Amino acid sequence: MDDIVCKFGGSSVAEARQIRKIEAIIRSDPRRRYIVVSAPGKRSSQDEKITDLLYTCQSLAAQGKSYEQPFQAVGNRYLQIDRELETGSEIRGWLEELRRQLDSGASADLAASRGEYLCARLLAAHLKAEFVDSAEIIQLDRNDTVAESSYRRTAEKLAGSGLYVIPGFYGSDSHGQIKTFSRGGSDITGALVAKALNAREYENWTDVSGLLRADPRIVRDPQPMAAVTYREIRELSYMGAKVLHEEAILPVYELKIPIHIRNTDRPEDPGTVISAERNVQVQPIAGVAGRSGLGLIYLEKFLLRKHPRYRSKVLEILASHGVDWEWERWGIDSLLLLVPEKQLEEKGELLRGVIAEELDPDHLEILGNMAVIAVVGEGLSNRPDITLTVLQRLSQRDIRLRLIEQGSSKISALFVVQAEQFHRAVQTIHDAID
Amino acid sequence: MDDIVCKFGGSSVAEARQIRKIEAIIRSDPRRRYIVVSAPGKRSSQDEKITDLLYTCQSLAAQGKSYEQPFQAVGNRYLQIDRELETGSEIRGWLEELRRQLDSGASADLAASRGEYLCARLLAAHLKAEFVDSAEIIQLDRNDTVAESSYRRTAEKLAGSGLYVIPGFYGSDSHGQIKTFSRGGSDITGALVAKALNAREYENWTDVSGLLRADPRIVRDPQPMAAVTYREIRELSYMGAKVLHEEAILPVYELKIPIHIRNTDRPEDPGTVISAERNVQVQPIAGVAGRSGLGLIYLEKFLLRKHPRYRSKVLEILASHGVDWEWERWGIDSLLLLVPEKQLEEKGELLRGVIAEELDPDHLEILGNMAVIAVVGEGLSNRPDITLTVLQRLSQRDIRLRLIEQGSSKISALFVVQAEQFHRAVQTIHDAID
Repeated sequence: MDDIVCKFGGSSVAEARQIRKIEAIIRSDPRRRYIVVSAPGKRSSQDEKITDLLYTCQSLAAQGKSYEQPFQAVGNRYLQIDRELETGSEIRGWLEELRRQLDSGASADLAASRGEYLCARLLAAHLKAEFVDSAEIIQLDRNDTVAESSYRRTAEKLAGSGLYVIPGFYGSDSHGQIKTFSRGGSDITGALVAKALNAREYENWTDVSGLLRADPRIVRDPQPMAAVTYREIRELSYMGAKVLHEEAILPVYELKIPIHIRNTDRPEDPGTVISAERNVQVQPIAGVAGRSGLGLIYLEKFLLRKHPRYRSKVLEILASHGVDWEWERWGIDSLLLLVPEKQLEEKGELLRGVIAEELDPDHLEILGNMAVIAVVGEGLSNRPDITLTVLQRLSQRDIRLRLIEQGSSKISALFVVQAEQFHRAVQTIHDAID
Repeated sequence: MDDIVCKFGGSSVAEARQIRKIEAIIRSDPRRRYIVVSAPGKRSSQDEKITDLLYTCQSLAAQGKSYEQPFQAVGNRYLQIDRELETGSEIRGWLEELRRQLDSGASADLAASRGEYLCARLLAAHLKAEFVDSAEIIQLDRNDTVAESSYRRTAEKLAGSGLYVIPGFYGSDSHGQIKTFSRGGSDITGALVAKALNAREYENWTDVSGLLRADPRIVRDPQPMAAVTYREIRELSYMGAKVLHEEAILPVYELKIPIHIRNTDRPEDPGTVISAERNVQVQPIAGVAGRSGLGLIYLEKFLLRKHPRYRSKVLEILASHGVDWEWERWGIDSLLLLVPEKQLEEKGELLRGVIAEELDPDHLEILGNMAVIAVVGEGLSNRPDITLTVLQRLSQRDIRLRLIEQGSSKISALFVVQAEQFHRAVQTIHDAID
């Protein structure tokens, strides 16, 4: 269908002024008929997060203590928005209802979900739109798995021709009790609604003008990506980029519904479109991502490849010491593993002893302070010059690569560097691909 | 100890003229006291291989047929050498003994072993050296495993101060029956003797002036390596270089006894020393090796890394279709496997169907005509410029790399190319590292 699902994040509904912006956005395109909202976000660093305040209320209520102070803080946020927007809503009644719920043993999930619930209620009143409670459409099974029936129910509930507002972040369990998402929050709700409706597009409105080509804490002034594919996002995300949670991508990925990341404060900016395909001529590389906090285990053993059980022995030793490996790379008579540095700090010496004793390697290195970096782009495999340029620039800047790999994925090249050189390497790669 | 074990290959004992050369070599250094010999090799392409003739004799004898013709061919070779060298040996008696053995049901192993046996007998007579039968010193258990007692027995038997000649290629089993090596031949005997004696050096005399830095069938005029380490040899060998069989390296590797590959026809040439360490300043890269005949399976699956059982499912499918994977490289949501091309030719289409059906990948490539190339060198990890130069040259010559990897082994960089570009890639890399 031709409609658009819009999800507005916390900053987009933080106050009346922001809500007027999203109203303008919604009114400017009649296809924007399904609005998913987060709870109002912090307006400044002084603000406490509404969800946290609600958890506090629930916890105090459960202990039989007064929750008046945090409750007032929550209530005032909504009352102020309501007043400034002159919604004429029943906000006082909804707050009283919440108070009754807290007094009669509301669960933490129910309490927390009210942040989104009240926000959606208010917005629906303001927009004269229909409010649809997520608890009635989204059912979560164990592990936050969305029950298939949710999609049918959502489509039925949203079948009218009007404008709908739906709270993000929660659904209900098989007993009808409110259940919040353990991760990914309202972004997931938006994706589920988009999938249920087979929407034309899933607009995800935030406070940035799209996803950036590199981490702005590392790279000076990285530009947003105009377009990026689902799998590029997935690789960037795995390698440390802060992007949508993958569970917020999977539902729309299945139907190849594009996700459009946009900025509520700058709706004229093009934002970033996440979709199944993109024009790689314009920009072969989507971006660069990386993370430090890794350790490395490297061992050599003559004729290792002739002993197939050696591999399982290595992995068993790691498992029995609670060390997870993230990457496993076998050479001919050698093995390189990347593991969480934290685990090495605790167990590195012990592990060194056990490996030396049980596996008798010819050479063993256990090192912390490593970082991994990925250059990700659908155009990478057809542009060998890019990898070459990246390697040249890294070499010119004396960045030593402990691992170079390209080809295990067609769309990324991987580099392992010392943590001390991590930021410089990311900046260098970013400049090389720009 | 300070002595040298010398192994002379088939070409070094092929005729009297060659044996005079090895005599000069042996006499020129009094430390050369342990001489291991192969059977006389072919003098020209017309010659039949002595071992093959002996197998034919045994086979005919076992069928009750006349083996006179091949037997004469064998006998004449030894008689001619004996005559030209004027050894004064009992060669006619030894040949008669072999005839009796064939007539009384000699095993194929016994018959085949007589090539080396008679050669060692003759040489011992010529050099006035002591002949020691390998059957009395080397005991082979199942799978050609050398019984530990062999080393003690060898050391005892060779404890004198004289010159010893020992036939290569065989030992005896636990019942005292002759047993030939299934692979690696006389090179292994030399290595076992060197280990038993903890020799100063294991000289392996052949018809080439050392191991070459690249395959001479691919590269124009590759130079010999002056020095190479055991692990470099192992990686080059695994990647397709024709070098010593690893079982001929392992015994001396354990005691770090250097192997010196030398040319009987050009004893003044420095040859190649294989040892535990070498000076990488002189030559950071040992050589380049590669092989074609590989196929590739590449698949992508969104969120693959989140499903740990996917890996075992892929490998189970391959195993159940009799496809062996040689290299396994996991990306984030992708997997690259290198497999024998032959197996893909037979089962590629079937496999494509099964993988598509059972694993539902987003993308699947099954390709033949791939080749893998390794640049191997102890100096590689400290010389990032070398990899860069190799990549630049490959790019200049339009060689497309399906996989680049450096770091899973510290001493090699791996490249996967299309088979059509294999020779050009090897030549290019050889020129780049030279």
